[in-house]
Amino acid sequence: MKRASTLVAASSLLALSTGPVMAEEKYALAVDTAYIFNTLLFLIGGFLVMWMAAGFAMLEAGLVRTKNVSMQCLKNIALYSIAGLMFWITGYNLMYTGVDGGFMGSIGPYSFDPVGGDALDTGYSTASDWFFQMVFCATTASIVSGTMAERIKLWAFLIFVVVLTGVLYPITGSWQWGAGWLSEMGFADFAGSTLVHSVGGWAALSGAIILGARKGKYGKNGQVFVMPGSSMPLATLGTFILWLGWFGFNGASQLAMGTIGDVTDISRIFANTNMAAAGGVVVTIALTQALYKKVDVTMALNGALAGLVSITAEPLAPSVLQSVLIGGVGGAIVVFAVPMLDKLKIDDVVGAIPVHLLSGIWGTLIVPLSNSDASYVTQFIGVAAIGIFTFVASTIVWYAIQMLVGLRVTEEDEAMGLDKAEIGVEAYPEFGTGSQRL
Amino acid sequence: MKRASTLVAASSLLALSTGPVMAEEKYALAVDTAYIFNTLLFLIGGFLVMWMAAGFAMLEAGLVRTKNVSMQCLKNIALYSIAGLMFWITGYNLMYTGVDGGFMGSIGPYSFDPVGGDALDTGYSTASDWFFQMVFCATTASIVSGTMAERIKLWAFLIFVVVLTGVLYPITGSWQWGAGWLSEMGFADFAGSTLVHSVGGWAALSGAIILGARKGKYGKNGQVFVMPGSSMPLATLGTFILWLGWFGFNGASQLAMGTIGDVTDISRIFANTNMAAAGGVVVTIALTQALYKKVDVTMALNGALAGLVSITAEPLAPSVLQSVLIGGVGGAIVVFAVPMLDKLKIDDVVGAIPVHLLSGIWGTLIVPLSNSDASYVTQFIGVAAIGIFTFVASTIVWYAIQMLVGLRVTEEDEAMGLDKAEIGVEAYPEFGTGSQRL
Amino acid sequence: MKRASTLVAASSLLALSTGPVMAEEKYALAVDTAYIFNTLLFLIGGFLVMWMAAGFAMLEAGLVRTKNVSMQCLKNIALYSIAGLMFWITGYNLMYTGVDGGFMGSIGPYSFDPVGGDALDTGYSTASDWFFQMVFCATTASIVSGTMAERIKLWAFLIFVVVLTGVLYPITGSWQWGAGWLSEMGFADFAGSTLVHSVGGWAALSGAIILGARKGKYGKNGQVFVMPGSSMPLATLGTFILWLGWFGFNGASQLAMGTIGDVTDISRIFANTNMAAAGGVVVTIALTQALYKKVDVTMALNGALAGLVSITAEPLAPSVLQSVLIGGVGGAIVVFAVPMLDKLKIDDVVGAIPVHLLSGIWGTLIVPLSNSDASYVTQFIGVAAIGIFTFVASTIVWYAIQMLVGLRVTEEDEAMGLDKAEIGVEAYPEFGTGSQRL
Repeated sequence: MKRASTLVAASSLLALSTGPVMAEEKYALAVDTAYIFNTLLFLIGGFLVMWMAAGFAMLEAGLVRTKNVSMQCLKNIALYSIAGLMFWITGYNLMYTGVDGGFMGSIGPYSFDPVGGDALDTGYSTASDWFFQMVFCATTASIVSGTMAERIKLWAFLIFVVVLTGVLYPITGSWQWGAGWLSEMGFADFAGSTLVHSVGGWAALSGAIILGARKGKYGKNGQVFVMPGSSMPLATLGTFILWLGWFGFNGASQLAMGTIGDVTDISRIFANTNMAAAGGVVVTIALTQALYKKVDVTMALNGALAGLVSITAEPLAPSVLQSVLIGGVGGAIVVFAVPMLDKLKIDDVVGAIPVHLLSGIWGTLIVPLSNSDASYVTQFIGVAAIGIFTFVASTIVWYAIQMLVGLRVTEEDEAMGLDKAEIGVEAYPEFGTGSQRL
Repeated sequence: MKRASTLVAASSLLALSTGPVMAEEKYALAVDTAYIFNTLLFLIGGFLVMWMAAGFAMLEAGLVRTKNVSMQCLKNIALYSIAGLMFWITGYNLMYTGVDGGFMGSIGPYSFDPVGGDALDTGYSTASDWFFQMVFCATTASIVSGTMAERIKLWAFLIFVVVLTGVLYPITGSWQWGAGWLSEMGFADFAGSTLVHSVGGWAALSGAIILGARKGKYGKNGQVFVMPGSSMPLATLGTFILWLGWFGFNGASQLAMGTIGDVTDISRIFANTNMAAAGGVVVTIALTQALYKKVDVTMALNGALAGLVSITAEPLAPSVLQSVLIGGVGGAIVVFAVPMLDKLKIDDVVGAIPVHLLSGIWGTLIVPLSNSDASYVTQFIGVAAIGIFTFVASTIVWYAIQMLVGLRVTEEDEAMGLDKAEIGVEAYPEFGTGSQRL
Repeated sequence: MKRASTLVAASSLLALSTGPVMAEEKYALAVDTAYIFNTLLFLIGGFLVMWMAAGFAMLEAGLVRTKNVSMQCLKNIALYSIAGLMFWITGYNLMYTGVDGGFMGSIGPYSFDPVGGDALDTGYSTASDWFFQMVFCATTASIVSGTMAERIKLWAFLIFVVVLTGVLYPITGSWQWGAGWLSEMGFADFAGSTLVHSVGGWAALSGAIILGARKGKYGKNGQVFVMPGSSMPLATLGTFILWLGWFGFNGASQLAMGTIGDVTDISRIFANTNMAAAGGVVVTIALTQALYKKVDVTMALNGALAGLVSITAEPLAPSVLQSVLIGGVGGAIVVFAVPMLDKLKIDDVVGAIPVHLLSGIWGTLIVPLSNSDASYVTQFIGVAAIGIFTFVASTIVWYAIQMLVGLRVTEEDEAMGLDKAEIGVEAYPEFGTGSQRL
């Protein structure tokens, strides 16, 4: 199913049972109303997902050390900006225009409706659709930012974002939401557990492996040294922002609000999304208490996010109980995967790989539990195809960037912190390890 | 009046003056539109109130000392999650199903509409209603968190949250919003000055008395030692978040947006809510300047919140001037009640008792000033009945928890801070009193 | 064109092509729906712009030094409150009632619709309109706050806010949005590049000149000493909040959502607004890298804001490419104007003059590029007239305040920081230069 442009047939127009006498005008009015509701859904959903960019910025600013906080702030506002530009220049059309069961769309910048235009045949404003799809693209790039923090060069990262948001994400996106080959196979990914979250996660995993761990993270005898984040309240704020934004992420992925059936489904999605996050939190709290005799607040935050990622592939069909369980398993994945990654010496600064990659896979594979239209085999094929493509393509891009401009800052710069080395503005010049005292 | 399910008769359907010839289809369309608007109101109001959970987290993180900040972050994300689970497992039905003039509803988990369902007879999606009511329940728990900060055990607090959100809040809620006995008496509490804010306040007061003050807060000779909060910008951010969320809290408590009368009322509510908060701020600024020759920023923040709580019982009927005055009195309550509580050695870390309990009582009692359907006697009865029930029940629950797992951390843990003692993750490891320097 | 009350003719009613037979009832329903959509637009836009008050608070808290952070928090919550009161007492009517091509409206407080009222002839709820216009007024005051930080007396600032929000802003606002003389000339300022942003900027410039620079900012031999802000993540958060709020600022300035043409235009505005900000970010990043070999995060943040201010005068008509370029020039203005202001020894703490004044002028002057209804001459006249009036009037008010209560704190207070001197509450008592260690 194409993610946007065919929705009218499936939703709004269905509501218009024919009434031959009063005819056109009445129906025109009803279609108008549906058009406004559909567009409004994209706008509200869009600004909520846009707000997730701030959530990632705060989460990452809170989870890196003081000396790299300005850099994470800059990267996040830069990546959101680049994603907007690239999704206009190439992304949208590559993902949505003329895919027709194939592997990618067309190439070229996207044009909106004219001023005052009324494209009734789409059932919504094309600019609202573009805006909503664009913020999803930006989310994918946000995921990469956190994993590779504290050691990647600014410009290396930004170049990767250009490719990811302008080429890689739109290509795999076209396979499903652009009505490409996966969609024709019957793959199901409602709001992007795989298309957004695991794509970001695969790109991050590839990058983290190539980049290597932060100096001092892993000892010679297998020790793992904790490098605590600089600000738990900022990390918490970021998590709450993401949770809030997710109502737009999943809710507006219903793609229509012009009928009572659609708005009812959106309501279910809101509730299920919330419950999956709650399940993720409660499970991480219980598990970390049981395992470590203390509750780990960063685990609880990531538990919420893992719950949200897990339910994103199918937030509509599950019952409340199923939603809690699906999210709860996401929380458990975080608790067990974080130390596992450390064993593999994959240094994922903010925990994005368990949250976005592993929980994204889990959420996608479990769709058939509640959605009888999906099959486990097809879900697996989709996860694997998108994973292999993204991992391989990302690896090629990372290596290309490494050859072009280098990936990793010098040891001195890493020790000094990227804020002084590359940004020139310390995050907290008057606090803690800040060097300036005024 | 039942808070949700009978609203259609009162609002949307009224708008459909009969027109026998064109008949059903036209009205079906109009009812559809009203259903979508009503549901959309719950969804928008719901995500705004959900966002208040972040507001409480930031407010409390800013007002406690560095060594307990991670704990407040954790408590706030945990309580929001627990509230969601409990309001599904028992809360919603206990509060809203089959109360019929009585003292509580039925017991058992709540079920949403089916996928694609269209419960036209309710006039909105049941899942949207559940979501909106759930976030109110969570707000109640947030209030308790702040007062008892810096000394209560994590698990003692979480157990209380389970009982508060799953049992206590729904029971008193059923008396009014569930169409119980108070509702039949004519009690008026539009959006919960009493049902939400003073319930949270009573639970917090009971807990604060049992728990006792923080070590070092009160000297032997009646001195009061200030324990300044760790971050004024976070407290300010939290206040702004709460102010924003309150537009959903009060505005969406209109419970319908499908007619021009309803949306006009929502607009009045937005404006009045804003003006009451503004009144609270201006009064606290003026009063603290007059009394102390300096303006106290935490008082100004709490003044905004007290103004908001004060107007919550009746945000629709007052004139603008009345709204400013009602909120202004809330601000004055904060200025005078904070030192009074200190005289009583009740250690309310964030000022939640003046803000939520006292201003909640004030706001409820003053309803008849602007709303001629309300009576001072009935308002008093409602305030007293809910206050006595909640205070007594909370006291029993706090003592039960004390016996089961203990309420208060050890003196060593309190001195060290709960972050190290119970969480194991410092909020700011590299700043100030943070012990780790990397 | 009057900014609000005549919109129905221009939009919603146009959609109702006549159909004589079915007549009134059908159209009544359609008008109802349009009324609800229009009002909802004001409410959503209003709460998004209200949220910008938090954005300014965080931006400024992040860009001042630790010792003045509480003061910026207080000023921002106070100014938002005062703006609400003044825009009710005098502002709204002065700006919107009975201007009729003239220079100001009438004097007196504003009244909303009655409860349950249905002012179908306006096409929206008057309270929603008031709320939406009020938050614009508050934004103007927010702009002044940042520039004059760290040395202006609290009460001097608050008195200025009273005059600005109750008198100055409404007067120049009436010239255009109140259907005054500028509007009749054909001046174009869609959402306030001039009416809001440059008005705030002129007031700030006037104040900064009179107030003088912070002690130690400029050396005797022309040196400029950097006084880095205390928290980059808070400044980043503030920028993201402002970016989010701007969708309401520009989008809801369409003033109607009851037709497909209107909602389509709002969608274009969302997309263009986003692209202008993205353009501002990318240009500042590229320019600071080229000029200074390091990317300056505060420049990037201000680049986003400058892009947003630049597109605000005309966010609808430009193509995507034009939007990117218009915003990009805004970003360049920031990069070049910040050092220029320092050469002039105008100490603009947060960069509000390049962002709001200069980019506001730029955005207004460039409107005719995309909007053929506007002329460069008229745009220039509008910019100049509003600039001269605001600069002169502000200067008079600043001098009057200086005589009445004094503008600037003592040198000792400035050195100690305004938090201790005037607020009595340190922002971060346990961090960095915080004096209390608990």
